[in-house]
Amino acid sequence: MCTEPHPAARDAAERFLAANPGDPTTYPTISALEDEAVEALGEMTGLENPHGYIASGGTEANIQAVRAARNLAEVEAPNVVAPISAHFSFQKAADVLGVELRLAEVDSNRRADPDAVNELIDDDTVLVVGIAGTTEYGRVDPIPTLSEIAHDAGALLHVDAAWGGFVLPFTDYEWNFDHAAVDTMGIDPHKMGQAAVPAGGFLAREKRVLDALAVETPYLESTSQATLTGTRSGAGVASAWAAMDELWPAGYREQYERSQANAEWIADAFESCGYDVVDPVLPLVAADVPRKTVESLQSRGWRVSPTGSGELRIVCMPHVTRSMLESFAADLESL
Amino acid sequence: MCTEPHPAARDAAERFLAANPGDPTTYPTISALEDEAVEALGEMTGLENPHGYIASGGTEANIQAVRAARNLAEVEAPNVVAPISAHFSFQKAADVLGVELRLAEVDSNRRADPDAVNELIDDDTVLVVGIAGTTEYGRVDPIPTLSEIAHDAGALLHVDAAWGGFVLPFTDYEWNFDHAAVDTMGIDPHKMGQAAVPAGGFLAREKRVLDALAVETPYLESTSQATLTGTRSGAGVASAWAAMDELWPAGYREQYERSQANAEWIADAFESCGYDVVDPVLPLVAADVPRKTVESLQSRGWRVSPTGSGELRIVCMPHVTRSMLESFAADLESL
Repeated sequence: MCTEPHPAARDAAERFLAANPGDPTTYPTISALEDEAVEALGEMTGLENPHGYIASGGTEANIQAVRAARNLAEVEAPNVVAPISAHFSFQKAADVLGVELRLAEVDSNRRADPDAVNELIDDDTVLVVGIAGTTEYGRVDPIPTLSEIAHDAGALLHVDAAWGGFVLPFTDYEWNFDHAAVDTMGIDPHKMGQAAVPAGGFLAREKRVLDALAVETPYLESTSQATLTGTRSGAGVASAWAAMDELWPAGYREQYERSQANAEWIADAFESCGYDVVDPVLPLVAADVPRKTVESLQSRGWRVSPTGSGELRIVCMPHVTRSMLESFAADLESL
Repeated sequence: MCTEPHPAARDAAERFLAANPGDPTTYPTISALEDEAVEALGEMTGLENPHGYIASGGTEANIQAVRAARNLAEVEAPNVVAPISAHFSFQKAADVLGVELRLAEVDSNRRADPDAVNELIDDDTVLVVGIAGTTEYGRVDPIPTLSEIAHDAGALLHVDAAWGGFVLPFTDYEWNFDHAAVDTMGIDPHKMGQAAVPAGGFLAREKRVLDALAVETPYLESTSQATLTGTRSGAGVASAWAAMDELWPAGYREQYERSQANAEWIADAFESCGYDVVDPVLPLVAADVPRKTVESLQSRGWRVSPTGSGELRIVCMPHVTRSMLESFAADLESL
């Protein structure tokens, strides 16, 4: 789910390789760019006054969402309820933060099932997770319903839009801060946003969420730090800013349309070879291709990674071109 | 404590801006460079078969050391004992991981006091921390003694050499895996190592430490991930490798000698202006300059950050030149 950075993003990354947004007083320029990048992410996700920062990636955003919810709730044995389609970083968050992760079944369309989520919730639930563009099948959970369920239980709602966040603005899905009472969100410029790694995004509707993450920083001029890491990548921040400045919204819309068309094209190619395909509602295709065929493709140099259930999975990232897919489809047909 | 990356490190960073060492099967080249970088860090720290990885920085290394110790110990209410000179990232680690941080007084020379550490240890102590080059005064704790104390208590010993690790090999201090029974260490190529941000190092003597951090990664070809973040910076890894390939050991020795001479020079300059100076045992000077004078210097454009006790602090990083210090000293004298 990484891609070649946009030339403007690459250029910005190279100019800020030595800057540390973790120390805003010493590096005011990169700090100002970070503020602008967060504003841009807010605009993209329907949040007028976003609180947040450019994180190392989706894993950090997920860990921070769980951490903030845990810190704000102050219950003895906190738990988090997420669909089984959630990224494995929630397992990491659970281990790191000492919270229990409860995984709810998904419906027949691979989206979070609100009833299944509801059944796992109890008084110790501090956070409910919805995914806007699942890692394996590109599914968008019913975010408005999940937000109601979460708030009825006194929990926060976190939306993991790490991969989907840069394509969803061009779809009809209800997934963002404006569509529902979302509390926090992860959205990664370094995935479909075409920034250089590491450039994730962590957003919160309310300032108290960031406050719940802050620790004091005695020897820096700034007095507290809400990020998970300390020193952070100026290159990542600058390239996130530059990519959004260049591409939002027209460039991202164009990229979405190209990626979505590619996904539908390769889905058709799988089907005409006789394989079952999970309908690509976002630019991500999973097809039920036997392991042996996958291995033959890999031995021809194709780098494909499987889903947990073993399907062959193609993410139509910006660097994935139609001619690349044509060449892949030709190899697939020949097997 | 960041610096301009070495040209070789910058070049390598630019070449690997789009690679993700978090997915080693998809990106085998950067993964191989990471293995070599970890080997080089092992050589630098007296560890023949190092287990570890290139982290986002010292904060991640400290969090991971505490996390591994907590996970291996499996006690109900784990605590960590560190000197009060420990970096604030241990506060962050304590909050994130739900462990108690106990801070021990330092001796008159600002080094960890083994008796004070010993007094805070109990059956629930999972980790003792020693600092090899403190953030504020560049002090090196008595690592061999601390390792004995830790192991007598059934705890692990972590050495935070984030800043000091690239200068200590050229001193007589006992600080590394070969000098003492050190279990884990943080050592940052992106500080005195002249790599681009983000390039920290987390090292462990035993494989079980990394195993205690691993979570499963269902959709990646590799099967587990011991890092704190998910997607990681190929630029950071490549530039760490390139910097060490270029500079270890001769280039780093030269840099240490230049930085140390600069530190002693500016320490003398402070003294001749009548200010008390904390003797720079490593290339880091703290001087008791009144806040008003510091503000005057800042208003002239000098970016100086204070210690927790308010001393003016100058870290003689590679980009800090003698002529820069001469100009600073001239401004200081004129006030």
